[in-house]
Order: sequence, then C-alpha cells, then structure tokens
Amino acid sequence: MTLTVALDAFGGDHGPAVVVPAALRVLSEYDGLQVILVGERATLERTVRAQGAADSERLTIRHASQTVAMDELPSLALRTKKDSSMRVALNLVKEGVADACVSAGNTGALMATARFVLRTLPGIDRPAIVSSLPTVCGHTRLLDLGANVDSTPGQLFQFAVMGSVLTNAVDNVPHPRVGLLNIGEEEIKGNQRVREAARLLAGSELNYVGFVEGDDIYRGTADVIVCDGFVGNVALKSSEGVAHMISHYVKQEFTGSFYARIAALVARPVLNRLRRKIDPRRYNGASLVGLRGIVVKSHGGADVLAFANAIREAIAEVQKNVPARISNLLESVLTTKEAV
Amino acid sequence: MTLTVALDAFGGDHGPAVVVPAALRVLSEYDGLQVILVGERATLERTVRAQGAADSERLTIRHASQTVAMDELPSLALRTKKDSSMRVALNLVKEGVADACVSAGNTGALMATARFVLRTLPGIDRPAIVSSLPTVCGHTRLLDLGANVDSTPGQLFQFAVMGSVLTNAVDNVPHPRVGLLNIGEEEIKGNQRVREAARLLAGSELNYVGFVEGDDIYRGTADVIVCDGFVGNVALKSSEGVAHMISHYVKQEFTGSFYARIAALVARPVLNRLRRKIDPRRYNGASLVGLRGIVVKSHGGADVLAFANAIREAIAEVQKNVPARISNLLESVLTTKEAV
Repeated sequence: MTLTVALDAFGGDHGPAVVVPAALRVLSEYDGLQVILVGERATLERTVRAQGAADSERLTIRHASQTVAMDELPSLALRTKKDSSMRVALNLVKEGVADACVSAGNTGALMATARFVLRTLPGIDRPAIVSSLPTVCGHTRLLDLGANVDSTPGQLFQFAVMGSVLTNAVDNVPHPRVGLLNIGEEEIKGNQRVREAARLLAGSELNYVGFVEGDDIYRGTADVIVCDGFVGNVALKSSEGVAHMISHYVKQEFTGSFYARIAALVARPVLNRLRRKIDPRRYNGASLVGLRGIVVKSHGGADVLAFANAIREAIAEVQKNVPARISNLLESVLTTKEAV
Repeated sequence: MTLTVALDAFGGDHGPAVVVPAALRVLSEYDGLQVILVGERATLERTVRAQGAADSERLTIRHASQTVAMDELPSLALRTKKDSSMRVALNLVKEGVADACVSAGNTGALMATARFVLRTLPGIDRPAIVSSLPTVCGHTRLLDLGANVDSTPGQLFQFAVMGSVLTNAVDNVPHPRVGLLNIGEEEIKGNQRVREAARLLAGSELNYVGFVEGDDIYRGTADVIVCDGFVGNVALKSSEGVAHMISHYVKQEFTGSFYARIAALVARPVLNRLRRKIDPRRYNGASLVGLRGIVVKSHGGADVLAFANAIREAIAEVQKNVPARISNLLESVLTTKEAV
C-alpha cells in the first residue's frame, strides 16, 4: 500500500531541524511511504542535504512562503496566512495529493484551518482532539482535549463514536470500552450534560461501561474516555504537572548528599527504564478527529523521536481509513437509534 | 487559647481505630485543645482505654447511636440519620459547644448535613471544598473540588474570596495570588463563565494573577487556584491517578531483575525521603468553606498520621477565625465593588 503524508515542516519549536530527520527515519521503516515536506524550499533543501539525503520520488518538497507563529491568533492565521506551511499541507490533503497531514504548529490555528479547509464529517458538529495516555496496563484514549468547551450531550456522544473507531482501528481493540468522565461527589452524579450523554451512550451499540473518575484514566478501566474539552484539557495538563513535579523531586533527591549521588548512579538504569515506559514522546501525536481527512498534531516541543511517532500515528490512521470508518459507525448508530 | 474540636469517630474506613489515636496525638501537642469524640459510647470508651488513655476534661465522649455509611445517599442520611456521629458532631459546632468538626465520612453526606445544620455565610451561595496540593516550591490551595457543578461566575468569585482568606489566615501568605483555572487552546480562552469570572476578579481588590492552566497547579504560580467543582475534582483525581501509576511502575521496575533489587536497596532511603515530601497524608484535610462554622473533611482511608493532619487544619482555622474573616473580606469586596 502506497500512502503520502504531508508534513508542516515549519510548525513547532524546532521546525525542519526535527521534521526532516523524523521524516527520514520513518521513510526508512515504511517502503510504501511518500513524504511531502511543506515550507520554505531553500531551507528544506539545505536541511535534507545536511542529513545526507536528497529529494527523491519518496521525499519531495512543496514550497510555502509563510509560517504560522506558535502564539498567532487562529482567526488571523486563517485570514492572512493562506500560503503558510500549515495551510499548504492541509490543502494537499484536501486535494487528495496527501492522505494525511502532520503538524507541530499552533494547535488553535491548526484546528481552525483544518476545519475550514477539510470540513467536518457528516453528522459531526465539531472535531475533537484525542490522544493516547499510558495506564498501569497499557494505554487509553482521552477526548476532547481542548478543541471544544461546553460540549453538548450529542457532541459527547460523537466523541465516543470517534474514540471507539480510532481505538478499534488503530489499536486493534475489538469492542473498545467507552467510559464517560464524571465526578462522584454529587448525589445525582455530575452535571446535566453528562447525565444526558450517559443516557445516549447506554442506549447505543457502543460498548459503554459507565461513569469513570479522574483516577480511572490511568487505571485502564476504559479504552476510550470521553469528556468536555475544558475538562479533558485540565485533566491532561494537571497530569503533566504532577509528573513533572515528581520528576523534579526525584532529580533533587538524587543530587542531594554524597550518598544520594551514589544511589542515583546505581538506580539510573532502573529509573531510565521507567522513564522510557512512561515517556511522553512515545505518546506524541494527538489526532484531530471528525474531519474529512487525517490530521495529527505533534507536541510543539517534539524532538525527532516524538515527531516520528506522530507520523506513525498518521500512517496507522491512513492504513485503517479512520475518517470513513467514523462516518460508517456514526451512520449505523444513528440509524439504529432512529429505528428504536 | 482554649478550643474544642468535635471528631466524627465513626466516619471513614477505619473509624475509632484511627480517630482515637490521632486525637491523642494532637492532644499531646496543643495544651489548650479539648476533643469530643462522637459516636457509640461503649466502643469509644474501649478504644480510648486500649490506647492507655482515659476520659478527662480534655477528652470527652458524646454518644451517637447511628453511623452514616460511606456509600449512603446524602439526602437519605440527612433525613434518616439524625443521631449519626457525623450529624451530632456538626450539631456541637452549631450549638457552640465545639469550635470545629472533623470527619472522614461520606463527603456528600457531610456536605449536605453541614449545609443543613450550619447554613452558609451571608453572601455565599454554596460552600466549596478546598484542599492543599504540593508544588515544586511549596503548596497551593485548589477549590472547588466537587461540591458544586456548573458554578456561576459569581460563585467562582466567592471561591476566590474563601481561598484567599484561608491561604492568608492559615498559611500566613500576606496577599495570596489567585489564579483562575482555564485552558489555552481556544481563541477566546475558555468558556463564558470563566471569562466573566475573570472580569469580576480583575475588578476586585483580590490579588488576581490571571488565567492558569492545569500544569500550573503544581508549579506554584498561584497560591489559590479557583475552578468549577467538576473541573477541580477531575484535576485532583487525575493527578492522584498519575502519581499512583508512576509509583506502580517504580515498584515494578525496582522488583524486576537482581540488579534492580540491589538498586532498590540502595535507592530506598532517597526514595523514602521523596515519598515523604509528596506524601498525600501530609496534605490530608480538605476544608468545607463558606459555612457558619469550621468543618474539615479527612480522606476516608486516612491513617493516624493523615487524620491528625486534618485535626491540625481544623485547629489552625479556629485559631485564625476563618469563617468570620471570609464574611469580612466578602463584605469589604462587595462594598468596594458597589462603590465603583
């Protein structure tokens, strides 16, 4: 199977310095892969040459004269950056030249431009951002991570459909368990929107396993966890914050006394193995789902290893034809519901 | 200064087995402290004797014939458990016999009963749950943690006032920096409620430092972080989930190979010191603020060390007269606002 991925080579904190070597690495893994590097031609040609590679049928460059800044207002980028590396990469997907687009650029601008260029799938109100997170026994996909706020019950239901398809197709889970993120303190649990979404999910053919709480995200009690974008974004970022704090204290403790330094030396191989296990770079590559095309967002600060993983996520979604499967499942669930 | 704390001795997973030794420990630290153990008299007398102690002027027992189960519906507890250890302890605060109440019982029931028995302070719509969390450089107070969902901008503002008073009074921070929890992905950041709350905070005399994101909770960028209860509960629980997962993997890594076991032996003192630093037991004791009385909620699974910390939090709030200070600050902020 031949497939083509367009890379926004000027998105993210590092631009071509990360995107080009990541592309070369993934090209060496997949025979059928073609990559289009999008951005300022001269710089890209120079970077490719510096890596000891050259343009070829499998590695082409598409010039784009503009870049979107990481802090640029999405609406401004949409209006004034019609020849940005991000926009041109998305256009390639729209035109059918590329099967997917990967960008480490400004999330808001990527979401706004992708919605404008690619449009949402029929039956999907708004796209969502979904990412994999490690659990004690594997990983789980959480959505939405901040593309939406004040999601309606119907939108939460659409998130569940999109998450199920992604988990089924890309992670090969036959009947993904879908959990709805909620809190346990209120008598009638959660808010009105969550309760109504629970009713929709329970009546559907999805494998809905009920309410889950924040700590369940990392317990692996569900394969897909659905929530409003505000809530998901806070859950993700506070998790990152805790992990960062623990790592800060580990470093501090192991650099204290002479004994601590010796202990660090002895413990390092073990701690390194641990770090690899929950390395966020392994989980890099959040998908913008619900669009008529495949768009993967890499972390802005991604290094080569991390960006390569985002490309691999895009490839997996192309191979499994994720957008069409979302449409099909959505149609089948909606038909079933109307039949009831 | 003499003060009296009523302890719900039959709340939580362990009941008197934890509450009684914790009470004895804190009694030995504060000369002016009196403790009233509330619950089934015979069991309490037996537990006190088993600890080598006896009833005294400083340690009295108040009989209560019922207990509230951890999974009991709050409304049912409120209606049918009028002689529960929880309710009687709250009554003692209401009657002025005790200055504060500490319970490790059912959070929902404690909140519902406390609101019914003690009532909210003037100007406060609904009480909130607030807790301290460790940061890389100290700690921060986060509220609400689940007492409210769909908080209005006015309620978020009240949370800010309550959090500021608590941080100023108990943590001795002169002008607590107040952050409003938000997400950074949307063009016009966050939802309508958060934006409106930001306007209220910016126009007040509180030391409002602007929007913060989930990862800022653990960075110490604010002393008080304000959010809707649904969001706060998810942030807290997902943080607990990550910490638990990391600890799970640390244990797993250090029990793997022979080398890993040796490394564990060497690293143990360092890891133990780290564990003490971010030990959740040190942060046990969430306050129910906004009531006409002091109520501290201990974690249900708290051990003696953790429950003793919840008692100490209650003592600090009594010493600093937190409810009156909340009223005063609220009145002063509201007057200022009306004057503008």
